[in-house]
Amino acid sequence: MKAAHMFGAGDVRVVDAPDPQIQDPTDVIVRVTAACVCGSDLHPYHRMKPIADGTPMGHEFVGIVEEAGSEVTGVRSGDFVIAPFVWSDGTCDFCRAGLQTSCRHGGYWGSHGAGTGQSEFVRVPQADGTLVVVPGEIDPALIPSLLTLSDVYGTGWHAAVTGGVGPGSTVTVIGDGAVGLMSVLSAARKGASRIILMGRHTARTDLGVEFGATDVVAERGDEGIARVRELTGGDGTHVVLEAVGHLPAYEQALGVVRDGGTISRVGVPQYTDGPVGRTLFGRNVTLTGGVAPVRSYIDELLPDVLSGAVDPGRVFDTEMALDDIAEAYRAMDAREALKVLIRP
Amino acid sequence: MKAAHMFGAGDVRVVDAPDPQIQDPTDVIVRVTAACVCGSDLHPYHRMKPIADGTPMGHEFVGIVEEAGSEVTGVRSGDFVIAPFVWSDGTCDFCRAGLQTSCRHGGYWGSHGAGTGQSEFVRVPQADGTLVVVPGEIDPALIPSLLTLSDVYGTGWHAAVTGGVGPGSTVTVIGDGAVGLMSVLSAARKGASRIILMGRHTARTDLGVEFGATDVVAERGDEGIARVRELTGGDGTHVVLEAVGHLPAYEQALGVVRDGGTISRVGVPQYTDGPVGRTLFGRNVTLTGGVAPVRSYIDELLPDVLSGAVDPGRVFDTEMALDDIAEAYRAMDAREALKVLIRP
Repeated sequence: MKAAHMFGAGDVRVVDAPDPQIQDPTDVIVRVTAACVCGSDLHPYHRMKPIADGTPMGHEFVGIVEEAGSEVTGVRSGDFVIAPFVWSDGTCDFCRAGLQTSCRHGGYWGSHGAGTGQSEFVRVPQADGTLVVVPGEIDPALIPSLLTLSDVYGTGWHAAVTGGVGPGSTVTVIGDGAVGLMSVLSAARKGASRIILMGRHTARTDLGVEFGATDVVAERGDEGIARVRELTGGDGTHVVLEAVGHLPAYEQALGVVRDGGTISRVGVPQYTDGPVGRTLFGRNVTLTGGVAPVRSYIDELLPDVLSGAVDPGRVFDTEMALDDIAEAYRAMDAREALKVLIRP
Repeated sequence: MKAAHMFGAGDVRVVDAPDPQIQDPTDVIVRVTAACVCGSDLHPYHRMKPIADGTPMGHEFVGIVEEAGSEVTGVRSGDFVIAPFVWSDGTCDFCRAGLQTSCRHGGYWGSHGAGTGQSEFVRVPQADGTLVVVPGEIDPALIPSLLTLSDVYGTGWHAAVTGGVGPGSTVTVIGDGAVGLMSVLSAARKGASRIILMGRHTARTDLGVEFGATDVVAERGDEGIARVRELTGGDGTHVVLEAVGHLPAYEQALGVVRDGGTISRVGVPQYTDGPVGRTLFGRNVTLTGGVAPVRSYIDELLPDVLSGAVDPGRVFDTEMALDDIAEAYRAMDAREALKVLIRP
């Protein structure tokens, strides 16, 4: 089958990989209908050291079950399924608590023999715990929105949930990438009264306004902090959803959060150490968020996607064939594309 | 009047200071019945640069109102009052939200002309917002416990509240100082099913066991982390209450917290930067706590102190006169005393 591998920084190619096979009776094989490139895929794209055989890529996909192992009971051939960006058994104590990202028998795509999404087929371990079946006929127009449940919508939702966004909250969202825009949508759906989106790509922030942002701040750093403070009577906002992952974005979050407020991070931190002393402590600021257990949110978010009440799939502004995935990475890295949907 | 001033590291002396006067109509003057030395007073005691006039010390006290300004309505001469370690107006939006430590017209003792606790008399600004009157005759035996409501009991309670401790929580408390022991007491009263106290001073950890600790771990660092993990099936505890403030204590907290859990810090951080990247993010660990708005907890905690249902005053293992305060600092710094109560 065709599969995208990354061979080093800036070097993604489609290779001919072995077709995946059922290995455990709890596996299924999924034929990918749609996959995509994640903002987090750009981190290795910037700095991965060359690897001779490459690393298979992709952790977001939806598709049709091709074959199911003998012990799989919740999923059958022909089902349309959404795959969260982490696979999980669904039965351990962490999964039952909604923290599938810490599953005792789970892992990331590409680990422990699991497949990867930027491929024609994927071996899915722990299929009953991992996959969510979408019932009925699938309207092709809904596929982009269904695909966001694999990662970005659930990740934005996790930001809003862990950030404690509720009716009347004031919120700053840092980052106008797909996760930032999904954080805006999530905060709006949670009832936030004010949502300040910090981003400087007009096409993206315009979409953010459609998703519910009430203000846009294009400035960054100290200037951006001053602007948000000016908009909030000097105080900052109750909640900050940080959807970038670089240290300056975290520092910006510290600058715009109100005393007693919460910073929820869903951008994967590209730093190890950072300000964590009195900057947080002296103002009773809570730091939360993390790698989103999107599996726990799909059941809740799916109905409004299916009914069309929300249209998170609008974050996909470009569509390409798997064969053209190198161009997809390049276009996202160059910020010519917000998020690229891939059709194998 | 007599007042304790710190003149530099290791140098605390009783000086003859001017008697405080009412300056604003919202002030009162309190005659101090009992004050104490705080673990946080030891930080400047270790490294303060010499100051010719010294800095007045003390932020915990209870006493009798001597004189009240003309606009004070909630407190009158002769009242026995508890002073939280921050003064606050009680009316601004932060105070109404229970975050008196961020009061728009408040501050720390010794700032903006406010007095300090290790003195015979204290000028209390914003008296109506700051002070809590204890009704009725005061049983002298209760004074140590009432004094803990000024800081350490409320601070331990803040750790448990912000850490989300509830029935069935598993909790690690790092630090066997007064705040650590109050964190144990608070976690026990919140219904924690297991409380592991990390500390190595047997007299203190023995008191911790009386306050509700179910296990004591004397080891520190990697050894201590391994021991807590061993006690918890490898997972760590849901909540960690960090009552020290040094970087190794925070690192220890990261090591013993369960995935999806919460670290609540109430030890004042003596560091600026620390691990804040994937160590928190990858495991969905929340970092919370901060400088405790103890004013918001006094009403809730007072009844059980008055009835004797709890006896937090047991953290005072030593009592001295104000004249002997240099010895109080020395004994606490040498860990010969857990916490010293001062009688002016």
